[in-house]
Amino acid sequence: MNKSPIGIFDSGIGGLTVVKEIRKSLPNEDIIYLGDTARLPYGTKSFDSIIQFSRENAKFLLKRVVKYIVIACYSSTSVALEILQKEFSVPIIGVIKPGAKKAMELTKNNKIGVIGTSLTIYSGSYEKAFQELNAKVEVLGRPCPLFMPLVEEGLLDHPATELIARMYLEPLKKDGIDTLLLGCTHYPLLLNMIKKVLGNINYVDASWELSQELTVLLNEKNLLNPTGKGNLTIYLTDFSMNFKEIAERFLNEPMKNFFRVAPESI
Amino acid sequence: MNKSPIGIFDSGIGGLTVVKEIRKSLPNEDIIYLGDTARLPYGTKSFDSIIQFSRENAKFLLKRVVKYIVIACYSSTSVALEILQKEFSVPIIGVIKPGAKKAMELTKNNKIGVIGTSLTIYSGSYEKAFQELNAKVEVLGRPCPLFMPLVEEGLLDHPATELIARMYLEPLKKDGIDTLLLGCTHYPLLLNMIKKVLGNINYVDASWELSQELTVLLNEKNLLNPTGKGNLTIYLTDFSMNFKEIAERFLNEPMKNFFRVAPESI
Repeated sequence: MNKSPIGIFDSGIGGLTVVKEIRKSLPNEDIIYLGDTARLPYGTKSFDSIIQFSRENAKFLLKRVVKYIVIACYSSTSVALEILQKEFSVPIIGVIKPGAKKAMELTKNNKIGVIGTSLTIYSGSYEKAFQELNAKVEVLGRPCPLFMPLVEEGLLDHPATELIARMYLEPLKKDGIDTLLLGCTHYPLLLNMIKKVLGNINYVDASWELSQELTVLLNEKNLLNPTGKGNLTIYLTDFSMNFKEIAERFLNEPMKNFFRVAPESI
Repeated sequence: MNKSPIGIFDSGIGGLTVVKEIRKSLPNEDIIYLGDTARLPYGTKSFDSIIQFSRENAKFLLKRVVKYIVIACYSSTSVALEILQKEFSVPIIGVIKPGAKKAMELTKNNKIGVIGTSLTIYSGSYEKAFQELNAKVEVLGRPCPLFMPLVEEGLLDHPATELIARMYLEPLKKDGIDTLLLGCTHYPLLLNMIKKVLGNINYVDASWELSQELTVLLNEKNLLNPTGKGNLTIYLTDFSMNFKEIAERFLNEPMKNFFRVAPESI
């Protein structure tokens, strides 16, 4: 057993959807969350910048003696996960592979759709994850850059959101996918709208899969905290207007311990 | 006369709509443009961060011996213009006041609408600009956070954009504004859509007004460059996917001299 906290980082507050699932699966664990809101979004930055920011985020968490690092950001996982795994001795898990594994289990026709930011899709990280899993699947990627701002604006079931969802998703439907991977922290909030367009296929929200895999991994390595009520501490590199309201929408519980930490000091 | 360049900064590439107008009005002038794409958008950052970033951008331009600084970013103008004017001896102009002046000239019923990012609207900078101009006008501000990503996605005349424009703008129409200020670098590209919703009222794009005011100011201070074909040099703190294509949409000419400069070195 190990009573140290789990460290989680994301480019912003969307990763709190991942925290929400981990809190459910591992209620005893202390969690330290770092949201790099001063430098979000990562999806429009260069690979070099994302690697540098991710390295700094990991170091910030390591200063707080975390036993495991979770990268809750799809862009960061796509570009920086393997590099950080080589550079640091603490175990690190990202959001891509647990989702890919689940999609592979669910698909019957081996046609899997993936939606995410442009960077997540163009980086080819899902194709790579399926290769590593030896999955013989066809991956149809579709960047959906407007989904994130639509969620942040709260237009979860607005007719404009439906038009945009149809624009992005109908080509995937036409192509006959039977499984869709939600490759961005914000997208679970659009699931009802996405289902309206794509109908009765399989949907994979990696937050849940990741929380399950993390439970297994912590258990294997004897790192679980068997007692206590886990505390959640949230650090953000910037506070913007309405951040608390939006954050609690993702987290689905009130935010209590949260602090601003200057990006140059992380 | 003074052959030094004019320095222009913005949080990203949207400010190239301002460069476009200045290039038309002042074709002899060399221009150095800094787009802080590594840290965009400014509109969701705290005031402290925006002031710090703006200060660094100004210093970067001053190292290149500019004779005038133009802040092409509405968020930065809203929060940092007055502070920078006190800190630096070079003259600095922002995008808020030239637009406010023009709107004051045009309005008949003294009801002026302003649209922009949440930060531009909530900072109250337009109200302040009208006060300083001694204008007795009613300012109706409306944040339109989805307009920027819709422009970047190229959906200038998509039905979803129309629905969102109606959601944002119909309350302004109902309130009887006779003049609308476009308070964000990206919005001139949506002008046709905005006109479709608001009809036959006055529209003020500050880029043009600013270029006119800058011409007068340079002339007054005897800073004009009377000869030569002005060169445009563009520095960006990050290169993202498709940045050149999107930048040229704003600039309306091919981008030739452009460089990446690391944000920590500015």
